[in-house]
Amino acid sequence: MDFLENGTVLSPKGFRGASTAAGIRYKDREDMALLVSDQPAAVAGTFTSNRVKAAPVLWDREIVNTTGSAQAVVVNAGIANACTGKEGYDLCAKTADAVEKALQIPFEMTLVASTGVIGMLPPADRLEAGVRAMAESLSGAEEAGHKAARAIMTTDTKPKEAAVSFEIGGKTVTLGGMCKGVGMIHPDMCTMLCFLTTDLAISRELLQEALSEDVKETYNMISVDGDTSTNDTCLLLANGEAKNPEITEKNEDYQRFVEALHKINTCFARKMAGDGEGATALLEVEVQGAKTHEDAKTLARSVVSSSLVKAMIYGHDPNWGRILCALGYAGVEFDPYKVELIYKSKAGEVLVVRNGVDAGYSEELAVKILSEPEVTVVCRLSEGEESATAWGCDLTYDYVKINADYRS
Amino acid sequence: MDFLENGTVLSPKGFRGASTAAGIRYKDREDMALLVSDQPAAVAGTFTSNRVKAAPVLWDREIVNTTGSAQAVVVNAGIANACTGKEGYDLCAKTADAVEKALQIPFEMTLVASTGVIGMLPPADRLEAGVRAMAESLSGAEEAGHKAARAIMTTDTKPKEAAVSFEIGGKTVTLGGMCKGVGMIHPDMCTMLCFLTTDLAISRELLQEALSEDVKETYNMISVDGDTSTNDTCLLLANGEAKNPEITEKNEDYQRFVEALHKINTCFARKMAGDGEGATALLEVEVQGAKTHEDAKTLARSVVSSSLVKAMIYGHDPNWGRILCALGYAGVEFDPYKVELIYKSKAGEVLVVRNGVDAGYSEELAVKILSEPEVTVVCRLSEGEESATAWGCDLTYDYVKINADYRS
Repeated sequence: MDFLENGTVLSPKGFRGASTAAGIRYKDREDMALLVSDQPAAVAGTFTSNRVKAAPVLWDREIVNTTGSAQAVVVNAGIANACTGKEGYDLCAKTADAVEKALQIPFEMTLVASTGVIGMLPPADRLEAGVRAMAESLSGAEEAGHKAARAIMTTDTKPKEAAVSFEIGGKTVTLGGMCKGVGMIHPDMCTMLCFLTTDLAISRELLQEALSEDVKETYNMISVDGDTSTNDTCLLLANGEAKNPEITEKNEDYQRFVEALHKINTCFARKMAGDGEGATALLEVEVQGAKTHEDAKTLARSVVSSSLVKAMIYGHDPNWGRILCALGYAGVEFDPYKVELIYKSKAGEVLVVRNGVDAGYSEELAVKILSEPEVTVVCRLSEGEESATAWGCDLTYDYVKINADYRS
Repeated sequence: MDFLENGTVLSPKGFRGASTAAGIRYKDREDMALLVSDQPAAVAGTFTSNRVKAAPVLWDREIVNTTGSAQAVVVNAGIANACTGKEGYDLCAKTADAVEKALQIPFEMTLVASTGVIGMLPPADRLEAGVRAMAESLSGAEEAGHKAARAIMTTDTKPKEAAVSFEIGGKTVTLGGMCKGVGMIHPDMCTMLCFLTTDLAISRELLQEALSEDVKETYNMISVDGDTSTNDTCLLLANGEAKNPEITEKNEDYQRFVEALHKINTCFARKMAGDGEGATALLEVEVQGAKTHEDAKTLARSVVSSSLVKAMIYGHDPNWGRILCALGYAGVEFDPYKVELIYKSKAGEVLVVRNGVDAGYSEELAVKILSEPEVTVVCRLSEGEESATAWGCDLTYDYVKINADYRS
């Protein structure tokens, strides 16, 4: 099960897309994308747990929870349409209406997503004009997929897209996707939006279950800055165009799909964490030997979210006390004097803590390891058999700059 | 009940102090302090909740939980003596031993505290030499108090000390203190240490209860960076030298003391938050109209801890969506469409959100208000009658600089 070369959200059969410069907030760049499935697709979705939910989240959740079927997704970057009250929700309806007029896709089959500043309304006329323009330029070409992945970016420094292929029932099935932003836990200008497409035939219930389960181990394990956005959305559309026997039970076919889904979600989670606002490095934290899987997740998230650990990764400083400190305040029981810490990267591997105290390591080697763009911290607890991985990034001057200045 | 002019930790009767340049880690500055009560004092203490506890925390907790009586406190800055195993604990004993030799204060009557880098042992010979030097220069003079408050600083930019006087049973009682660092939630180079002294006569049990209760509303409501130190310690010594009738029940005298304690703890909490690493502004968050006091505290802490809110304060950017977002992910139930937000400072007051959406405010005025060194955000929920206040600071380039560079 390998990644396709130049895979995009349009790699699965029966999906087309387009993008346009609608002038929502950015100048001189594309800021809207449209995805269309030729056939109605089963849709699964997971959304922000924030009590303050943006209008598009409410709109999409309604569709996912009722019909579970969709054919189009309209995305805009620049303005989040969050904290906009009834007007914000009406704007989602207007957008779906524009899609119906342009493409004869029923009103209630269009999903919407927005990312950007909270508390502002995207201009309705520009959204509608954008939809009309995109409806005329729909294409299944690779280039259209690449352009869509760029159009949904905010403070992202690179587009994030991928696709994998696998066989089910003698048919080639493809799963593609694009995403933007930097996590569940995360800046308001840089909401996590993720759009997954597949030509797999699968029941709507299993599609949702597969997504809901996998999100817990992938996107929910990213942290950039501890702020859970009002707009976080992950949508997965399955249109059945691969013509495989429909998956309706948790058989081997289902497992194969789950494996593909996990592969692409893990890929995206790492991409988002590594492209966190202002980041110079991807930080991966593996907790091993925890009593329970929940403990392992809590501990991994605590380390990856610590401002001090993040600043130390930026400084390439092997100041391991901060990691032990972050494990210690996670609220999980463990014996600090059984802990081992290891730093790993392309530059090598070094044991820095044994039995909770300094292991007597080479400072020079540790600094070298921490100077790579992808760094792994392994925390071994010797409390049990469970493990978990979380992803984050370093805390840099640029994070502060982006978030102190961006609106001005 | 007013603050004394030039009040220090030595303002209460019967306390003397000293400081010295022991060369623990800093060069060319004093880095150790000694406090001594002429008489044995009742001692109360609160300590870090981090599972990884520094050796001095274990040492002091033992004294507080057993005899509850102490006569000396030895503090060093620069090295935290955390994650140092049995050797670290033995070092506390050696320090107490040095105090016994120099001042004939029984071994088990000396409290110790350390702040600085985790994972290193302070050099025993320098600690001991420091104790000997300080024992010879003990003084009750104001200047000795000021110097002690400076000697315990790490990344603090200014010393933090205060004292208040009040009458109990016809006697003048004084409560003094010094502290350092920036919170319960907080950098490892900059642990919160707080030392309070009083000449009040009070039972040990009530002393501890008064401290434990007040800490919840003061130091536990500070956030600088979400990192709970391994060394956080707040000690309160009461030596009875004011000769008031001993407080042994929760009468008016007790209430008067509690009021004084709250006054000084709130003062210190604000000082610590405003002097957070790299901070240019004190951020005060008041949550009003919450269903329960716990809800109010949780919401206030969520806002004050948000990296995005902190960065926006640094940028003087009235980007209120981030505040609603931080309320929304706090895990507390409330109706976002009943929320009011107000920005306040010396420069004025402005309502920015009404019923959860933009109130139509003057951006110019809001920026002016947020440009002051002390800024208050009021969040009104209309869910109930409960309120709480939390304190923090802005997130700046200097925070990143201090924490990416400091060990090198």
